[in-house]
Order: sequence, then structure tokens, then C-alpha cells
Amino acid sequence: MRAFNFSAGPATLPESVLRQAADEMLDWRGLGASVVEVSHRGAEFVAMAAETEADLRALLSVPDDYAVLFTAGGATTLQALLPLNLATPGQAADYVVTGHWGKTALKQAKPYVALNIAASSEAGGFRDIPPLSEWKLSPDAAYVHITANETIHGVEFRNMDAVGARLARDGVRDIPLIVDFSSSIAAEPIDISRSGAIYGGAQKNLGPVGICFCILRRHLLPR
Amino acid sequence: MRAFNFSAGPATLPESVLRQAADEMLDWRGLGASVVEVSHRGAEFVAMAAETEADLRALLSVPDDYAVLFTAGGATTLQALLPLNLATPGQAADYVVTGHWGKTALKQAKPYVALNIAASSEAGGFRDIPPLSEWKLSPDAAYVHITANETIHGVEFRNMDAVGARLARDGVRDIPLIVDFSSSIAAEPIDISRSGAIYGGAQKNLGPVGICFCILRRHLLPR
Repeated sequence: MRAFNFSAGPATLPESVLRQAADEMLDWRGLGASVVEVSHRGAEFVAMAAETEADLRALLSVPDDYAVLFTAGGATTLQALLPLNLATPGQAADYVVTGHWGKTALKQAKPYVALNIAASSEAGGFRDIPPLSEWKLSPDAAYVHITANETIHGVEFRNMDAVGARLARDGVRDIPLIVDFSSSIAAEPIDISRSGAIYGGAQKNLGPVGICFCILRRHLLPR
Repeated sequence: MRAFNFSAGPATLPESVLRQAADEMLDWRGLGASVVEVSHRGAEFVAMAAETEADLRALLSVPDDYAVLFTAGGATTLQALLPLNLATPGQAADYVVTGHWGKTALKQAKPYVALNIAASSEAGGFRDIPPLSEWKLSPDAAYVHITANETIHGVEFRNMDAVGARLARDGVRDIPLIVDFSSSIAAEPIDISRSGAIYGGAQKNLGPVGICFCILRRHLLPR
């Protein structure tokens, strides 16, 4: 039996996955080479990437009008790449900060957008979500960013319907909600269509360290 | 015996390395977990990273006043990150283009700097290095970028001393030379002190796909 792993960092991978990886290290899919020695443009690698995307789409019920991207690095990399790609330089972006990882998102976005802290529970020690009625949203924001689950402070958004309704109330229905789902993705069914984009590191619930997922509405891709 | 691999993509890894990776997949360094299941802040991982850096420093004779960075992704990622980090927005950057990968470097840098093509052999089909005397360098460039070896067009800089002398001639000795060494790093001894930074993907000569090296003069880090 393998050791239990209660680390706050990356989670365990299934033993069957690790055994398969070990078994294929010298000969992946009969190619006589490991997966890290073959071209990412090769038919076998392209097929594996397509299979991975199809599996994730099935697991998370990803709607067809959402694209699935796998990117290198950690979620903090995406926290910089998303504003770089979804906002024009100097455009406002709204952040609701409910813990450590929301502050990280702020820090990563700071060089690229005009940050608006629409709401923050920092003054109260990050013990709750600021009342939705008090969020100060910008009518021209590039997006609204929240952290689905704050692992360090223990604050989780449990009612995404209410968040969607809140955005709609101010007539900002078309402003995409971007959600950092690093620590709770795939823990329970979610309705992805409520968000413009969800993203996160894979290492908690989906896969190994070093890779991220970003699932975003296709109409945002041209940005 | 393993199959020979003449792919133009990633190179083979030593069989002993692959066997060690397979053997340690369920239990890395006695931790009862694989290397992709442990924290990057853990003592064992930190020690491995330090050992990797020390080995690369010894192999390439990296001078002490150069920092060694390992980054996720491919060299094209660094081709965007280097201008983002080494140039101020809109500052000029000089590029000498001698093939496909030099053009890739241009494309990746374009959103972030004022590109100056100091020299290009594209009109002649990328068959040579434009004469150094004809390079049109900018006195206020953030850096000068060259590609050490163009794998597709077969053009390689063989005389870095001459390149250094050329930069010095225009009194631009302090402008860092940045060299994409993706395809020829560690193929022969090089004098790193001639460059402000050398970088590349690891997958040709140093390691697996998905990781890059960037070795740069420490005084450039504050930028």
C-alpha cells in the first residue's frame, strides 16, 4: 500500500496512473520512445491531447461553446495571462477578494489592467464573502474575477447563481465572470455556462503539477 | 536495444535516466510519492533543483555573475518573456534574423517592444549571416537578439568573438546580447560571458520537453 498524502500542496495521483506512466517510460504507445521524447505535432501525441480534452469535457460537462486550453505553469501564470489576453491595456477589471489566492490574482494582474477591488473581506480577516449587494462593479470592466474556494482562509462561493444574478442586476451580464477553480474543480458538478472562463492548476484534483486548465467561452478567444 | 530516434523534434533521453524515472514513479527519494506529487517548497524538491542547477553550471562553465533560471514551456514562451522583462514598453530591441527561429523570436516580441531588424538574410533565402559591418544597431536598444543555430535553414554563428567585437565597435558594449541556444547548447564549450543572456528549450540537448533554461547576467535581473 502507498503512503497516505495529506500535503497541502499537490494531491496524490491514482496508483494505476503512476504505474502506467512508469511502464511506458521507455516505449510509449509502441513508438520505442517515451512521451517526452516525441514531437507534440506527431499523430500519437495529437491523439492523446484530443483524448484528454474529450475526457475533461465529459467529466465536467463542458458546453460546446467553450474552448478547453491546457497551459504550462501554475495558476499564477494564468492570473497574468488572462488580463493580458482579455483586457485592453489600462482597461478596468473588477476583483472580489476573499482570501490569499484572490490577493495573488490581484498581484499578478496589476501590471496589465486598472485594478478595481469591487469587494474584499480582508478587513475582517477573510472570514466571509462580502455581501453581493455591496460589490462595486465597474460598468466597463473587462471581466469580474473571483476565487471559487480559498484554501488557506476557508472561504468558498457556494451560490454561483446568486453571483450571476448580481452581475445581471447591474446590467453587466455581458461582462465575463472569471473564476479561479484551482482547489475545487471536479469536486462536484458545476454549471460552467455561468462563467466566461474558469481556470486553475491541475495538481489538486485533475492531474500532475506543471499544467493548468482554462475553459473559456469561445467568443472571448478573439480578444 | 532501444530504437534510434532521428526525429527533428525532441531528442532521445539516456536510457538510464528513463529507467530511473520509471523506477521512482511510485516512490521518489523514499518519500512514498512521485516527484509530481510533492511540494515544490519541500526540502527534497528544493535540493533536487539546487543539484540540477549546480550540474548545469559545471557542465556549461556558467560564470558566478550569471543566474540560472528554469522556466515552464518552450523557447517561444521565453521569446515573449525576455522582451517583457528586459525592455521598457516601446523601447527599441535589435534583432538579427538568419532563419525560421529568428522570425519566431520577432513575432513573439512584437507586442512588447519597438522591433528593429538590424539585419536579415531572408531576401537571400536565409543562406548566410548578414555581414557584421552592415548590421544597423540602435544605440538605445534594450538588447540585441540572435539565434545561435537555425535548425531549418542551417545557419550557425561560429564566431561569437566577432559578434562581440561588432557590438563593441558601435560603442554598444553595454547592450546585452541575447542568444537563442535551443538547438546547440552543450554541443561544444561556449564562453557565456560574451552574452547578456542565453536561453533555449531543454528538449534538444539538455533534458525533456516542457522546460527551458535561461542563463543571464545577474545585473539584468532587476529589470
